[in-house]
Amino acid sequence: MPSTAPAYKVIGAGIIGLSTAWMLHRAQPTARISIIDPAPISGASHWAAGMLAPTAEMQFEQDELVELMVRSMELYPKLVDSVQKNTNVDTGYNTEGTFVAAADAADRQHLHDLLNYQHSFTRRADMLTLSEARRLEPALSPNISGVVSIPDDFQINPRQWCSALIDALKSSGVVDFESRPATDEDLGPSSIVCAGLGASSILSSLGLELPLRPVFGEIMRLDVPAIHRPILQRVVRGFVNDRPVYVVPRTSGELVIGATSREDGRDLPQAGGVLDLLRDAARIVPSVRDCDITEVGCGARPGTPHDMPYIFRHAPSGTVVSTGYFRHGILLSALGAQLGSALLLGTDSELDAADVRALELCGQLK
Amino acid sequence: MPSTAPAYKVIGAGIIGLSTAWMLHRAQPTARISIIDPAPISGASHWAAGMLAPTAEMQFEQDELVELMVRSMELYPKLVDSVQKNTNVDTGYNTEGTFVAAADAADRQHLHDLLNYQHSFTRRADMLTLSEARRLEPALSPNISGVVSIPDDFQINPRQWCSALIDALKSSGVVDFESRPATDEDLGPSSIVCAGLGASSILSSLGLELPLRPVFGEIMRLDVPAIHRPILQRVVRGFVNDRPVYVVPRTSGELVIGATSREDGRDLPQAGGVLDLLRDAARIVPSVRDCDITEVGCGARPGTPHDMPYIFRHAPSGTVVSTGYFRHGILLSALGAQLGSALLLGTDSELDAADVRALELCGQLK
Repeated sequence: MPSTAPAYKVIGAGIIGLSTAWMLHRAQPTARISIIDPAPISGASHWAAGMLAPTAEMQFEQDELVELMVRSMELYPKLVDSVQKNTNVDTGYNTEGTFVAAADAADRQHLHDLLNYQHSFTRRADMLTLSEARRLEPALSPNISGVVSIPDDFQINPRQWCSALIDALKSSGVVDFESRPATDEDLGPSSIVCAGLGASSILSSLGLELPLRPVFGEIMRLDVPAIHRPILQRVVRGFVNDRPVYVVPRTSGELVIGATSREDGRDLPQAGGVLDLLRDAARIVPSVRDCDITEVGCGARPGTPHDMPYIFRHAPSGTVVSTGYFRHGILLSALGAQLGSALLLGTDSELDAADVRALELCGQLK
Repeated sequence: MPSTAPAYKVIGAGIIGLSTAWMLHRAQPTARISIIDPAPISGASHWAAGMLAPTAEMQFEQDELVELMVRSMELYPKLVDSVQKNTNVDTGYNTEGTFVAAADAADRQHLHDLLNYQHSFTRRADMLTLSEARRLEPALSPNISGVVSIPDDFQINPRQWCSALIDALKSSGVVDFESRPATDEDLGPSSIVCAGLGASSILSSLGLELPLRPVFGEIMRLDVPAIHRPILQRVVRGFVNDRPVYVVPRTSGELVIGATSREDGRDLPQAGGVLDLLRDAARIVPSVRDCDITEVGCGARPGTPHDMPYIFRHAPSGTVVSTGYFRHGILLSALGAQLGSALLLGTDSELDAADVRALELCGQLK
């Protein structure tokens, strides 16, 4: 009975909106879903490197965020699988694991301290000898001081993954994409706002002042010349003179380099950030120097005061909000989609204990 | 009598072709000139930083090339003036002078040796104290080891300058731009080939194998934030651990950084080159770090075996050739235009001794 089927509006066609729409569709296959965005996959989902790294990305004193990251990582394989069954678009999901390399002795100490924190969450993480590490990743510099292997930290290619989600959603026959900005009329109990940084202005008409701020970062894409392929099998993260850097190899031969973070409101890539990234990446993987630069960009993550996302139903209007995923939007999207869709469908009472706990941690603005 | 006026074809609408066409027009104001290029200002003229630096760019054991550079520099002011009178497009001609900075003690020795060579050509070049240099250019790093001031090395903005040339040529009423590749029918005694690297394939149908090769280089354009403007008044060149680098300030607030050179056939900017440029530029002018990157590119200069341009008339076909300007195409364009147009017009017998000497140096393939 499609004519009486419920209808939902998802505002924002980045990874959060698209994943949420997919979860909605899976839960209620006949429901009509409108996805409203003038420029799909144009925000953080366009820029992100796509690491799924609950272990490597742990930061001290963020225990509650780690809970969310671990929980979301558990949901990811099934989410990817369900989408992959409904599209021919490759998702760029890669389960080869992650290395974290330390440049100097102080960086090695940092790595060691982090290892203890990672083990306190019973995550797998093992210090390798340099020769062990270089046997597995020969492109690693011989002049580094330590490598930790994290076999359960993966990656996905966010641009491909979002394209796959769009394709699967379109194939469903019940999802429409509306290429327009959201208006006040789009808000209400059947709507979920997943518009990243754009959520602030959309929600302000409800009197809801969401404290989102843009946290900018330089990100580069490089093409690996044939002579160096495959340059890496795994994601290689690094600490170089206490600066983080990541070098993410795609099966396509593309390399993604990033990790800078600044809150100066400037939305173009800065020379200092690009310099640091290239120097630090080449410190860990010297053949990065020989790669062609195909893109130098700058993206903004939607930052929040406590580094936790906001997933809650705004009681006065009934609108569901799902934004503020900050540095971990790609990883947290699976959990965000599960919680956001449950709130919208009103099935949150059926969630299991871990999800209810996650919802509590995210729902600070309820 | 326009119907009986002579007609010329200029193949190539880069700086050499455009300057040559302008000289042709100045010499024979009623002559019809066709300028043939499917993509004007798309080669080296698009990428070049535009330094007019016969003194700073001297290289040991290139005495004959220095002769050409000095001669061309003498012709530049009048050339710019004649164009500027016929267009409202700003040429970006800037006569503020040039500094050359040395990073470490070895670089300072290099600077000192070069100074002696420069003085042997009676060029003005003066070693400054660091405090003198930083009084004039406060953005210079306090951690450099020496600065030479070269007051007579200037700069022009090649993209603007070529646009001004096109505008002046179009305003003449006797010049047509044909947006198409040149064919064999375009060659002959009324034609001059100024197609840069493209000259090789155009001329091969004449049985002329011109040994041009692409010499690639990374080049970046940055936007200087308001807080740092003006970041520099002068062109600042540097030697950093024996690597050359230049930082060219435009009055628009744009900064151009370049100096790499490679002959590996790869036409995308390489990470190693960009890394070296940014690191070396920031070594000399630290606030480069705070600038926004607006363009990361890679251009190719038409290299020749002896580093000298080719300007000659190909006797069998009558076609005039003017190409192979290598690293100094912007500077040498004034001389190249003078000599090339004289050859085409048949007025080369009226040239003065210095120009005849230059023509001899360039005419190796006669």
